[in-house]
Amino acid sequence: MALSELSDRFRFILVRTSHSGNIGSAARAMRTMGFDGLSLVAPNRFPDPEATALAAGADDVLGQAEIHGDLVEALAGTTFALGLSARRRGVTLPELDPREGARQALAAARRGEKVALVFGNERTGLENDELSRCHAMVRIPSVDDFSSLNLSQAVQVVAYELRTVMLAEESTAADIQVPEEDVPADAEQVERFFEHLARTLDDIDFHKGRSPVTIMLRLRKLFLRARPDLRELRILHGILADAQRMAQLAGQDQNKSRT
Amino acid sequence: MALSELSDRFRFILVRTSHSGNIGSAARAMRTMGFDGLSLVAPNRFPDPEATALAAGADDVLGQAEIHGDLVEALAGTTFALGLSARRRGVTLPELDPREGARQALAAARRGEKVALVFGNERTGLENDELSRCHAMVRIPSVDDFSSLNLSQAVQVVAYELRTVMLAEESTAADIQVPEEDVPADAEQVERFFEHLARTLDDIDFHKGRSPVTIMLRLRKLFLRARPDLRELRILHGILADAQRMAQLAGQDQNKSRT
Repeated sequence: MALSELSDRFRFILVRTSHSGNIGSAARAMRTMGFDGLSLVAPNRFPDPEATALAAGADDVLGQAEIHGDLVEALAGTTFALGLSARRRGVTLPELDPREGARQALAAARRGEKVALVFGNERTGLENDELSRCHAMVRIPSVDDFSSLNLSQAVQVVAYELRTVMLAEESTAADIQVPEEDVPADAEQVERFFEHLARTLDDIDFHKGRSPVTIMLRLRKLFLRARPDLRELRILHGILADAQRMAQLAGQDQNKSRT
Repeated sequence: MALSELSDRFRFILVRTSHSGNIGSAARAMRTMGFDGLSLVAPNRFPDPEATALAAGADDVLGQAEIHGDLVEALAGTTFALGLSARRRGVTLPELDPREGARQALAAARRGEKVALVFGNERTGLENDELSRCHAMVRIPSVDDFSSLNLSQAVQVVAYELRTVMLAEESTAADIQVPEEDVPADAEQVERFFEHLARTLDDIDFHKGRSPVTIMLRLRKLFLRARPDLRELRILHGILADAQRMAQLAGQDQNKSRT
């Protein structure tokens, strides 16, 4: 199923939003994640230039927004509703984190259901009566002493989770293609580099009489961890060759001056 | 390990932020997820009443914010840096989604590393030069035709992912002990190595008139991927010093033979 077809089964419902700027920011947040179904329940002010400004180009989302008098009306046609809540509540609803909420919402959408994601007023959240219309509660795992996300941030997190779960389910079998040059070099090619490195360390008199074994082991470990590709190995070989050339020049001239 | 102790190992770095309101919103977003290490690189205006207003009480985060002149300075002391990017870029860095980025960042933090999360300017993002200081790129999986998240929304998504992964791992993760020497070198130490490497390539005449920029970018990528520890950096510095010594001998002797 196309992602866009699946995304069309979700509706973001903002209830009694005070600041119209938040409606705009929420529209933008939804749009970045591929959602455009927005419903507004008794917004304080809409349409509003502040909403349009903060939508930052997600005008289509604002233009198609449905406006309703109460949540019951806004939920018409949906079959699965998740209510966002910052606090743990007295309501005896299952409490999900956003990831598990996204999984359940997506499973419903795949069955052809229409899913509602319900966000309360900035200050007061959802009323218990409104939460009781929802099938589960989603709590974004904020810290206890600073638990209140901005409304559009909560919308962003939920929209992001939905899209991430969708993409993860979609790509399970997909092979990742990488450009040929980025394929790590094979063991033989890497060995040739280590041989060249060992010879160069001798040539530039790096060991100064100490055993080269430990150093080479450490360098092996470092470069094996990096998993160089062929292009990178070519650069490294080039550097070693130039260092050897310098050593040779130095040595030849030293020899000359000795004779 | 306590979550707060782990959270203290993360630093959110906002680079060249234009709108101070976004700094405030970002501080609030971080704070809801338990993070308070904020660094600002060349902010357009800070402190600013707009930032304070939108922080909505996260004044401690703003009050402790460090201000730096450039990203290199802000990265001092960190060992693992993730750069946020909205677009797929020409830079050949590993590209992670926020979840995988959070996993890798958290693994580093558990080893005792300091982790940087780097966010660019609202309009232009991070410069390639800035991205090249990062170990990997994180792309929030937005839709292609509307890919730009508000800056503070991106901060919220990343902070949310970090906290979610932390909470998920909390019950199962035993602290991984690694020998002290194996802790990757910090950004400053790695930069000093790159500077030494660049000087050495000049000294041994590696470039032969070609531009050093591409080569250095490729070498940066290779060594950042390997994440050398201090002992490994010492070995690499030693090799470079000997190659330079050879170049000097070769040069001196050449000069002598010319006179």
